[in-house]
Amino acid sequence: MQAERKPIGILGGGQLARMLTLEAHRLGLSTAVLSTKGDDPAALVAAKWHQGDPNRVSDLAKFFALCEAVTFESEFFDAAAIAEASRRSGVPVFPEPSLMAQIQDRKTQKELLDAAGLPTAAWRAVDSQTDAGLALRELGEAGVVFKKRRFGYDGYGTTIVRPRAPLSSVLRAEACTDLVAESFVRFRREIALMAVCDQQGGIAFLPWVETQQSSARCLWVKGPLRETARMRSLRGMLKKWLQQIGYVGAIGIECFELKGGAILINELAPRVHNSGHYSLDALSESQFLLHVRACLGERVESPALSTPGFAMWNLLGSEQAGVLRSEKAVGSASTRLHWYGKSEARPGRKLGHVNAWARTADAALKLAQAQARRLQKQIGY
Amino acid sequence: MQAERKPIGILGGGQLARMLTLEAHRLGLSTAVLSTKGDDPAALVAAKWHQGDPNRVSDLAKFFALCEAVTFESEFFDAAAIAEASRRSGVPVFPEPSLMAQIQDRKTQKELLDAAGLPTAAWRAVDSQTDAGLALRELGEAGVVFKKRRFGYDGYGTTIVRPRAPLSSVLRAEACTDLVAESFVRFRREIALMAVCDQQGGIAFLPWVETQQSSARCLWVKGPLRETARMRSLRGMLKKWLQQIGYVGAIGIECFELKGGAILINELAPRVHNSGHYSLDALSESQFLLHVRACLGERVESPALSTPGFAMWNLLGSEQAGVLRSEKAVGSASTRLHWYGKSEARPGRKLGHVNAWARTADAALKLAQAQARRLQKQIGY
Repeated sequence: MQAERKPIGILGGGQLARMLTLEAHRLGLSTAVLSTKGDDPAALVAAKWHQGDPNRVSDLAKFFALCEAVTFESEFFDAAAIAEASRRSGVPVFPEPSLMAQIQDRKTQKELLDAAGLPTAAWRAVDSQTDAGLALRELGEAGVVFKKRRFGYDGYGTTIVRPRAPLSSVLRAEACTDLVAESFVRFRREIALMAVCDQQGGIAFLPWVETQQSSARCLWVKGPLRETARMRSLRGMLKKWLQQIGYVGAIGIECFELKGGAILINELAPRVHNSGHYSLDALSESQFLLHVRACLGERVESPALSTPGFAMWNLLGSEQAGVLRSEKAVGSASTRLHWYGKSEARPGRKLGHVNAWARTADAALKLAQAQARRLQKQIGY
Repeated sequence: MQAERKPIGILGGGQLARMLTLEAHRLGLSTAVLSTKGDDPAALVAAKWHQGDPNRVSDLAKFFALCEAVTFESEFFDAAAIAEASRRSGVPVFPEPSLMAQIQDRKTQKELLDAAGLPTAAWRAVDSQTDAGLALRELGEAGVVFKKRRFGYDGYGTTIVRPRAPLSSVLRAEACTDLVAESFVRFRREIALMAVCDQQGGIAFLPWVETQQSSARCLWVKGPLRETARMRSLRGMLKKWLQQIGYVGAIGIECFELKGGAILINELAPRVHNSGHYSLDALSESQFLLHVRACLGERVESPALSTPGFAMWNLLGSEQAGVLRSEKAVGSASTRLHWYGKSEARPGRKLGHVNAWARTADAALKLAQAQARRLQKQIGY
């Protein structure tokens, strides 16, 4: 008999919850999804979908009672409400809501990284025009990036002030609060690392990848990168830190690699992450499956590569998108489409992605891009 | 906006309906499943599951009204009831119920093949002990296989009479009715071909594969086979026949390849088929996705190979199976597990399969078998 067990609960109904659900299904496992709308991407594929607001204590309480463990697809929920629902129900949340709270606020995220001795760009908190002026003077040699402390992602809530540009030209006085300011980093490339931590202290690392943003959104990912000494050293520091704080589940670490090879951490995402979507087709286990298994108390191991080179290309909504016809999508060799079933194609919105595999990362990237172009015509996104 | 459209309906809730649903999900498409039990493999993953009996007209009528088109995962439903539901609702069924009726009965299936000039072993209908005796004399040089006309699959309802063995030793007199008798075929290997036909007359062929049965159940599949002149010729005949009868959807053609290379058709399956499960990971489009797209009126093309060699290994229930723990499954490179979430592990029951890909079919088969062995320990099936 299959062990009777409650499903793993997922807060949020977007594409990350959808892919967690689909990967759980492939392994015969069960998820339950709490989200607001019946046409949310995960609601469309979850056998156990519950309508509700992941920020409302009463909705959370009902949902937690049905689950063996709970996780989330976004760090921007009300961490206190989730912690309260977990405490009352005795159902654990992975990763811990207190970490969600610390990471969802860029200031406390920076403090967390500083306390662990993990390298970031120079930064300071900004709560006034005076603070902002100080930031420009202290951090501004190459420019300063102002970011909202909370609810900023994919470039939302980010303002870049070029060297010697007047602050007032880009940032209104009344906007100079609840920000962090960072030195603008001239990087050689953006790289990323995914880790998945189990409840026994084991950590699975996915390979290092290069990521490319376009208009502040992830456009493509390719890998695996040859791990440099500096990457290895940073991975060692991250491992110690994650074990020390007892992290459980997936975490995305987005980094800048500078010209000389030094690495700075740009941002943490305490969840499965766009930079790991390639893992659905290129590794022995995907980030989604590893995360689900870790949340269920299973040990995880670093997955093996199923291909020497891989890439992922995001399908982002265009201005012209009309009726989307994903059923018209024709596959191509060594690529696979993952379409999220979204009901609206707003410009820049993540609608799906193409994974590709080949002898090299660059060859895979070419395959993925070519297929993305074909799909644009077929699906009309 | 995504075009608002009704889901494609699937009659039956087993692993074939489950994989049709999961592949539809990956493309952002929607299915609805009609099956009897809430823990049926497809019921566990379908966002739109409807409890009901696919053989009951009233359940079918309600279900058809919700669907854009309907298909089935088994040819052993009541074809007349399904045809009636389709006629009343105006919702089409693919493939046509009349074909389901002809193919579900081994006698009319043989007549269908004979009428099309498609090669099979010599056969005759058996409705009495006299017929059975005639069959032994006429067809029995190498032995005779008696098969129940209906509801036989995976070796159920099949009796083999060796040359010169007395009929009475294996087949009771009262069982000599509603049978077909076939000459026992000494084959070099069993091979299979999947085709998926669209509504415009286009046909996608998957590559030829070799299949291996164990205790009358499919154990493994490997491919692609180099297409011989005889395979090409048979494929040409099948193409003409499928276009002539206006077949829509997937069809599995199981064959015997004799020592000299001649090919006889053993059985037809008017649906997605175990011999095509490898396509989930080895082709540009799987049999499931091609079938769904064909049912929705889209054109299909023969899919491209994503790997030079592939294999599939079925995970069959053992006598010892206790509590199944699929969450313990650890992946391995160049393999992927598809687990069906069944609640019981009866001996010989199909619980899941492993797909593998490599430079050759044999290398892939080794990978798949090794991973199946590891999974046996991890999952405990």
